[in-house]
Amino acid sequence: MRTLKIILAYDGTEFSGWQVQPGVPTIQATLASAIGRVTGENVLPQGSGRTDAGVHALGQVASFALESVIPTANLAIALNDVLPPSIRVLECMEMAPDFHARKSARAKTYRYRMYRRDICPPFLARYVWHYPYPLDFDAMQAAALLVEGEHDFTSFAAVDPERGNEQELSSVRTVFSSRMSAADGEFLYEIRGNGFLHHMVRNLMGTLLLVGKKTRAPKDLLRILADRTRSAAGATAPASGLYLVRVEY
Amino acid sequence: MRTLKIILAYDGTEFSGWQVQPGVPTIQATLASAIGRVTGENVLPQGSGRTDAGVHALGQVASFALESVIPTANLAIALNDVLPPSIRVLECMEMAPDFHARKSARAKTYRYRMYRRDICPPFLARYVWHYPYPLDFDAMQAAALLVEGEHDFTSFAAVDPERGNEQELSSVRTVFSSRMSAADGEFLYEIRGNGFLHHMVRNLMGTLLLVGKKTRAPKDLLRILADRTRSAAGATAPASGLYLVRVEY
Repeated sequence: MRTLKIILAYDGTEFSGWQVQPGVPTIQATLASAIGRVTGENVLPQGSGRTDAGVHALGQVASFALESVIPTANLAIALNDVLPPSIRVLECMEMAPDFHARKSARAKTYRYRMYRRDICPPFLARYVWHYPYPLDFDAMQAAALLVEGEHDFTSFAAVDPERGNEQELSSVRTVFSSRMSAADGEFLYEIRGNGFLHHMVRNLMGTLLLVGKKTRAPKDLLRILADRTRSAAGATAPASGLYLVRVEY
Repeated sequence: MRTLKIILAYDGTEFSGWQVQPGVPTIQATLASAIGRVTGENVLPQGSGRTDAGVHALGQVASFALESVIPTANLAIALNDVLPPSIRVLECMEMAPDFHARKSARAKTYRYRMYRRDICPPFLARYVWHYPYPLDFDAMQAAALLVEGEHDFTSFAAVDPERGNEQELSSVRTVFSSRMSAADGEFLYEIRGNGFLHHMVRNLMGTLLLVGKKTRAPKDLLRILADRTRSAAGATAPASGLYLVRVEY
């Protein structure tokens, strides 16, 4: 029995998120089915975390145990042969038996793409949030920086029906970096941290939007964090702009 | 009554091509419906030419006559409000009454994108032809150049069921430029000419592939043209890699 790690990229547009759910297409179920077709083994790959419906990945990580002795390079090629073009295995490698994509993760990076020009090219529509209205970039940049550090992120966490009573679990996370940049007609928000609550990046982006619109000042981010109530923060930004960039171990 | 010209970009993946057909989504029908919703007028916009199912456009041109006095800038914005994100109006302008998107066209440019790296990113899968196998780029480049000039393109023309007996019409076209280049893991084939037959660019690309595979030599392009029979040329390359780049008047 080998423990395998695979790194995946996917276009989340036509999937109901990562996690297996009855009756709808998910990344996890599609990957499990591909592993089954290639190896004949019935395994459920564990992701580093769930991504929501419509959210993309440049470097999601999944782990699973396999009896098959197929070389990892061949497994990657064989999986790509049976997976839809919207999901690609970028790398496949053997790990120590105690490796687990979620439990072993030390840091994750997410990126949010907001397209700023008047007309969104049709080839980008699935991959960005198109928001062409005036925004104060400098204020958003200043607010983004205030998210760095250890905080209780309750104000930015959606209630997660699949996780049960979220109150019992800690909402404290450490954000190693939180930066806004601008390039090629886009605002890019990139955040790296030791863990993320449900909808956390999209809720941060929705709150940075309020700062850009001058509905809130940059320093309000600290008050919103201190309030520890979801209603203090902004709306959830659309899934189409969000990417899980990488997972570190 | 004003004659209007609009320049359109579209992601053709989910459309059955440009031309109105019963029971399937087409660009022309979607645009006609949007014009109807915005102006209340029932018009059928004429394209510079039809694009096949799955073919994209960076600068398709359509013309139509309108009673409405809505300013052209407002019309563009209003159309984009009701069109799906996969179709965007880039420009809208008033023209002389005799302007016709197809009849007035003097030159068109098409681009074909072939993605060459082993793994095609999921975000490109709809927008390229993924062909990661060995190809002789220099030979393809030499063959592409031989297409320049005035030729009878019968060998590269599909029988077009909607056009009736193609034999009665001339298959002679002038190609102003035909160039292959390479950048960012892609082979790009760009061709500019005074007109194109049905499937002509995709059939040229399929034949350039044979040259890249060394099944044919570059100079065979001239013999294939001289043969004036479809069976002399290569297979039709996939629609997903083809873009109508611009139409000149």
